[in-house]
Amino acid sequence: MKKIILASKSLDRKELFRRMGIPIETFTTNVDEGIYKKRIKKPIKLAKELAKAKALYTKKKQLKKDGDAIIIAADTIIECEGEIIGKAYNENEAFEILNKLSGRTHNLITGIAITEINNSKLIIDSDTTIVEFLELSQKDIWSYIKTNEWIGRAGAYSIMDKASLFINKIIGSSSNVIGLSMNKVYNILKNEFGFNLFQII
Amino acid sequence: MKKIILASKSLDRKELFRRMGIPIETFTTNVDEGIYKKRIKKPIKLAKELAKAKALYTKKKQLKKDGDAIIIAADTIIECEGEIIGKAYNENEAFEILNKLSGRTHNLITGIAITEINNSKLIIDSDTTIVEFLELSQKDIWSYIKTNEWIGRAGAYSIMDKASLFINKIIGSSSNVIGLSMNKVYNILKNEFGFNLFQII
Repeated sequence: MKKIILASKSLDRKELFRRMGIPIETFTTNVDEGIYKKRIKKPIKLAKELAKAKALYTKKKQLKKDGDAIIIAADTIIECEGEIIGKAYNENEAFEILNKLSGRTHNLITGIAITEINNSKLIIDSDTTIVEFLELSQKDIWSYIKTNEWIGRAGAYSIMDKASLFINKIIGSSSNVIGLSMNKVYNILKNEFGFNLFQII
Repeated sequence: MKKIILASKSLDRKELFRRMGIPIETFTTNVDEGIYKKRIKKPIKLAKELAKAKALYTKKKQLKKDGDAIIIAADTIIECEGEIIGKAYNENEAFEILNKLSGRTHNLITGIAITEINNSKLIIDSDTTIVEFLELSQKDIWSYIKTNEWIGRAGAYSIMDKASLFINKIIGSSSNVIGLSMNKVYNILKNEFGFNLFQII
């Protein structure tokens, strides 16, 4: 069986693979996202390009070590009323983001890039889930911020945890909204790399 | 803080509370679901009545023990093209159910009943999530059945685990599709029982 390297430090993405019983290794990339954000203003294009950059970074760094590994990279971006929203870097930024999402509908877009160490093939895709937030009081938002669950998450929330109370409805893939559309990953691996996740689960 | 008794043996529902950091006790009910299924043909009504029966069963059994506890009961039912689908009791039944869901859209309905040991108030509600299954091959279905994840789950699948590969799209609450709409539970507790889950998270 080929090794899978998940080019992400997201615990939510790691958990998706764990729950599916798929063994992975993780690799933390060091891509300057700011450069991409300045250059690319379309959210789907940005998510895809960031996922691609993470996949290629990982490929370069791992080249000599893992001859037979599949690399899966992802990047999640939130778009709310035309504005691209990433992660918060302090409590006030988290408040601003959640206050913006409150009572509104946003798109949660995850770019996916899959390649192999010894294969020039690189497949790039994305998935979008529509998320409807309830109207939140300032008190609700600050209570949530104090849980620290906003840290490191695009849009300053994770649907898997306490922020599930904030979400009225989603339309789309439920794994995408956690951080990676497992259904898309499954199909890309099966159709493009001849690798069936079902054989290992 | 009041104790919460979850009248369910579902590990998925228990996990929803765990992930939210809400401590609960669980209680396994013994309600004859067959009687209800014969009598009630409307799926939302059936899910609500079963949740109610589980809540009242728990209340009766726990009466002397837990004077101040809140009881949360739930029952999940799947409706696919007018047919009510419950749990499978063997591999062949699981196959039949998943084969029926394959390539089709179904409603996942969870009835919710919330009461307190020493309070005659009983609030009953339900939530419906629309789930679109991909077209599955017989081989995919049997591979899934061999994981045993179908056991004890309405519709013979859990979206949290490997069956996430089967699901193209959901429309509705993502916690409802796991087994309990946490958003609805939060609102009922807050508005009807003066109990704010956020105070304890």
